[in-house]
Amino acid sequence: MRTYLECIPCFLKHSLDVSRLVTEDDALQEMIMKKVLSLLRDVRSEESPPLTTARMHRVIRSLTGEPDPYSSYKETFNHIALGLFPRLKARVQISEDPFETALRMAIAGNTIDCISAAELDESQLFESIEDSLSCPLDRSVIAGLASSISEAERILYIGDNAGEVVFDRLLLEEMPREKVTFVVRGSPILNDATMEDAVAAGISPQVQTIDTGSDAPGVILEECSAVFRDRLTDADLIIAKGQGNFETLSDNEKPIFFLFKVKCSVVSRDTGAGIGRVMVYRGGRG
Amino acid sequence: MRTYLECIPCFLKHSLDVSRLVTEDDALQEMIMKKVLSLLRDVRSEESPPLTTARMHRVIRSLTGEPDPYSSYKETFNHIALGLFPRLKARVQISEDPFETALRMAIAGNTIDCISAAELDESQLFESIEDSLSCPLDRSVIAGLASSISEAERILYIGDNAGEVVFDRLLLEEMPREKVTFVVRGSPILNDATMEDAVAAGISPQVQTIDTGSDAPGVILEECSAVFRDRLTDADLIIAKGQGNFETLSDNEKPIFFLFKVKCSVVSRDTGAGIGRVMVYRGGRG
Repeated sequence: MRTYLECIPCFLKHSLDVSRLVTEDDALQEMIMKKVLSLLRDVRSEESPPLTTARMHRVIRSLTGEPDPYSSYKETFNHIALGLFPRLKARVQISEDPFETALRMAIAGNTIDCISAAELDESQLFESIEDSLSCPLDRSVIAGLASSISEAERILYIGDNAGEVVFDRLLLEEMPREKVTFVVRGSPILNDATMEDAVAAGISPQVQTIDTGSDAPGVILEECSAVFRDRLTDADLIIAKGQGNFETLSDNEKPIFFLFKVKCSVVSRDTGAGIGRVMVYRGGRG
Repeated sequence: MRTYLECIPCFLKHSLDVSRLVTEDDALQEMIMKKVLSLLRDVRSEESPPLTTARMHRVIRSLTGEPDPYSSYKETFNHIALGLFPRLKARVQISEDPFETALRMAIAGNTIDCISAAELDESQLFESIEDSLSCPLDRSVIAGLASSISEAERILYIGDNAGEVVFDRLLLEEMPREKVTFVVRGSPILNDATMEDAVAAGISPQVQTIDTGSDAPGVILEECSAVFRDRLTDADLIIAKGQGNFETLSDNEKPIFFLFKVKCSVVSRDTGAGIGRVMVYRGGRG
């Protein structure tokens, strides 16, 4: 997905929010803002938004020395989600269609997002789960995903956020795990899941897990490791969670299913779906 | 008032909104955005926000050739306000304290603002009038304003927006008009009132009206005409409407009363009053 002009003020606001999370030093916040303003001048519309987010976070890291601003946020949401896990797992198991229920749970987990829901609490998460379980979804796409999973030999499941990965585990446990490679980010960016979170969620080692080799909150192929790129090339099915993966992979031609909540007006415009809408979206040529 | 870091994303969003109002040409919108990003790098925190707004609008005017993007908006709100005027005037006249009622009406008119209420309609205006008439205001400040008016010899009443000026007329008509000079902006900026609007509202010629000589949405003295500056120096009381005048005159030492609605988080922080709050605020040394 391209970058729209309305992404630019949003980038700037985000960089200010992160600066304030990391430092109380006004002069340092201002220095970050000026560097980000310069960086935003060079944004090209054909680039995907997560590339700019990655670049802004590099600026913030280099100026503040803080490698992981959302560290405690990620821990909190892993903890909350793990506390819910047994109940959610039971709900999947007793449901009429465990695959679809787990799929809906996995999308509900995408509510956990530091950008659009910095103030997210447990009650909002419950609300989101109920909403995701009951909202209308395109049944033919769900059936298409289920049959793609059973036909595929090598599935890449690209995760999004910490906490959310616990919800992904519900879906992974309804899939033939031996065929699946779970993917996390190469290093901390926003509240996105890294290897540590996949382990905390109990995904790794039960599902083979690799990282992208990149610090982008999405999949920017040129910045990913050779290992990840090879695995992507070999995969015959990709499942990608969250807006960041959608924004960076929406033009990819491989068979791909995107599971996410629409969180901003730009993605809403690009997909034609309203903000807050739960999406199971078939991309690629598949 | 100084510029805070959170003004910067807001400036950028505003410039995008104005660009889109003026042109549908994506490339031109992008060119404006890039120029504004450069301009924002040079903003100094000690400058007042309206100076940056003026500079951004100069960029937009020079790149698009459109001198007055809010022209039709201003006409509409003059028209709506003039339609309401006889009823509002009657309400002032039958009220127990016509001065206070007119003062509250004048502040209610400050709801008409293209930045914070691009979608403002007549029903919101009615709501705002009722709110402004009934909300708690500091009676001692109102009494202070009334006695300052009666003691003053030369009063400068600095207006804010088109449409709103019709509400100002209610207050001006409760004041000794021969002592008052009404002030509008020197040329179109946002939906701020210019001479044309003061005439349309029926203020000029019944009250002597001058303009600032500047295109800033506030009073940036270095950019104002000598005529206006002399009049400001000579005045022994200033009444200033709206956030833009507050932001540019809050550090002025002359006896000054600000009448406005708090419309953004930055002014809310600076004044300690919540967003939407109706303010009668005594500034200066007076």
